[in-house]
Amino acid sequence: MLGRTRRLVILAEGSFTPRDAKTAVGVLRYRPEEVVAVLDSTRAGRTAAECAGVGGGVPVVAGLDAAAEHGADSLMIGIAPQGGGLATSWRGVVRDALARGWDVLSGLHEFLADDPELAALARRHGAALLDVRRPPERRVVATARAAGVEPLVVLTVGTDCNVGKMTAALEIDRELTRRGVRSRFVATGQTGIFIADSGAAIDAVPADFIAGVAETLVLEAAGDDGEPPDVVLVEGQGSLHHPGYSGVTLALLHGACPRALVLCHDALRDRIRIHGGERGEPIPPLAEVAAAYEGASRWVHPARVVAAALNTQGMTERDARAVCARAVNELGLPATDPVRFGAGPLAAAVEQERVARREAARHGAG
Amino acid sequence: MLGRTRRLVILAEGSFTPRDAKTAVGVLRYRPEEVVAVLDSTRAGRTAAECAGVGGGVPVVAGLDAAAEHGADSLMIGIAPQGGGLATSWRGVVRDALARGWDVLSGLHEFLADDPELAALARRHGAALLDVRRPPERRVVATARAAGVEPLVVLTVGTDCNVGKMTAALEIDRELTRRGVRSRFVATGQTGIFIADSGAAIDAVPADFIAGVAETLVLEAAGDDGEPPDVVLVEGQGSLHHPGYSGVTLALLHGACPRALVLCHDALRDRIRIHGGERGEPIPPLAEVAAAYEGASRWVHPARVVAAALNTQGMTERDARAVCARAVNELGLPATDPVRFGAGPLAAAVEQERVARREAARHGAG
Repeated sequence: MLGRTRRLVILAEGSFTPRDAKTAVGVLRYRPEEVVAVLDSTRAGRTAAECAGVGGGVPVVAGLDAAAEHGADSLMIGIAPQGGGLATSWRGVVRDALARGWDVLSGLHEFLADDPELAALARRHGAALLDVRRPPERRVVATARAAGVEPLVVLTVGTDCNVGKMTAALEIDRELTRRGVRSRFVATGQTGIFIADSGAAIDAVPADFIAGVAETLVLEAAGDDGEPPDVVLVEGQGSLHHPGYSGVTLALLHGACPRALVLCHDALRDRIRIHGGERGEPIPPLAEVAAAYEGASRWVHPARVVAAALNTQGMTERDARAVCARAVNELGLPATDPVRFGAGPLAAAVEQERVARREAARHGAG
Repeated sequence: MLGRTRRLVILAEGSFTPRDAKTAVGVLRYRPEEVVAVLDSTRAGRTAAECAGVGGGVPVVAGLDAAAEHGADSLMIGIAPQGGGLATSWRGVVRDALARGWDVLSGLHEFLADDPELAALARRHGAALLDVRRPPERRVVATARAAGVEPLVVLTVGTDCNVGKMTAALEIDRELTRRGVRSRFVATGQTGIFIADSGAAIDAVPADFIAGVAETLVLEAAGDDGEPPDVVLVEGQGSLHHPGYSGVTLALLHGACPRALVLCHDALRDRIRIHGGERGEPIPPLAEVAAAYEGASRWVHPARVVAAALNTQGMTERDARAVCARAVNELGLPATDPVRFGAGPLAAAVEQERVARREAARHGAG
């Protein structure tokens, strides 16, 4: 991960739960071989699986000494607070890790390498501060060039923030690969970048260049490297209905120029989750949200919702199946929880769209 | 302007025309008393009015020596290229100004004060580098708080970039003030900031905080300073139909939470103007664009288009009147060119909306 294979301890102090420790859970699910411990003193002594439902027997520890005993050589900030700052309480842990010569991997908006004290500590101990949220230097204004790429571009979009857009994209990507379809995952957020070892955190890009960064990521993934993939699966961000993040969402939609969308929803969420834990406006019915995304895509490049990915974490299996069945009915599209029930129906919907598009292109050319 | 009264020379080299020198034209129109010369060696010897239709007898000069003769004491970068970088060819002029001890005012994305050579020069000569596009340090995620303010919040929105959204907002603001309505203009772009001496360039804000900055600006303008205005007029940015900037536009719409929108359009523009001077997709009919804005606003806080501001620059008066009449017909709303024919109908539409809303609130309360 980020240059070499790591033995990570992931900082998730006080919040190592399936819903709060987004980065920790994502990395444990998709890069488990690089995690040796999770730091959450409130849950020390348990296993990752017991706390977060992923990560098997990876131990939860109370401090860096215990992490060192498990062979840790790098610290990852595994909590992504809204706003993105380095909580004062974590500062001591970061300092301690650097003093041990461990690299620190961070997805915070506040860049660790720009902090004079931390930067000096890192230099003194030969440690690296890796800020994956730092935006690319190149400033590109999007011009809808991504609309012209050969692969089918798929974007996961959501009814809200933090509902499973990255997970849906990764699960569909894996399922397509399993089926022999050449698929490429494009990370647009910090956790996705840790998992994919590439990408850009578009939510930290200066406003004028958000869509440009998304466009560049898609062009690169669709690449002229001799073997373009069949499908480019772009990790979505935010939601058109979120008062704080809708701009990021629309910039990504218009920069990436997807042809197909997968609508993601947390089945236990009925209202937008706004900053500070307040409950925002009610989330509209799925069909209305799908129509909003299709309408907004038409402003630049039309896209169609082809399936829905539901996050049913915390529900009984029976309720989860009922929720998926209702979504199928409401949308007239495949809908499932890709983590719980497998991404088969979602991958099939993407593949069907790809084949239909290829046939249409042939027909058009003939 | 920005701390003291200035004697500005505005750099508009090679592009001092009504449509290319957006910042120069804006400052000449609304802060003429602080401009002593415009620098464009390709048009030296003419007056501002001859080149750009504003600025009266302000001389166009070929270099800083001539500007000094007219008493200049500050240089403003008056061109806002897409992408926002400091063109290599302007660097010498900036250096020259600093060497004279003149402050340099810039709205570029590339911050002059972060340039080691320019920063050192400024220090040596006691000059200031004023980067108005630098985003506010405070990181706020929007939560639709602006929806609750007392004044009527009005946002100008556009069919494209650079069609007259700032000008429409300023003209309506002035006309409302003339009519005794307490109106406050909120600048969201570099030219607006120069004119208003306040505001924030939202297009340079990191993506997660764009809407938050817009929200903060509206809350401050609607302020608890004892005398809240009747109307807050927010300068719009970009367009929902622009592939590069639509995210900025939506973030501003959802952060500012306007109740009323004024739709702005350049009557000579039939296609989106995309980066690098290419022509993008056709601009949809005005009614369709208005519906897009109203639909997008409903995702967070509903707003209504109450009037249209047309930019008829370069058209005969007869054609201009015909274009306005067509827009009135198409939208069923007041529509005029506020610079050419006065902002009366637009201000009246805003005022009518404000009164209607106040009556509705009273009715609801009774």
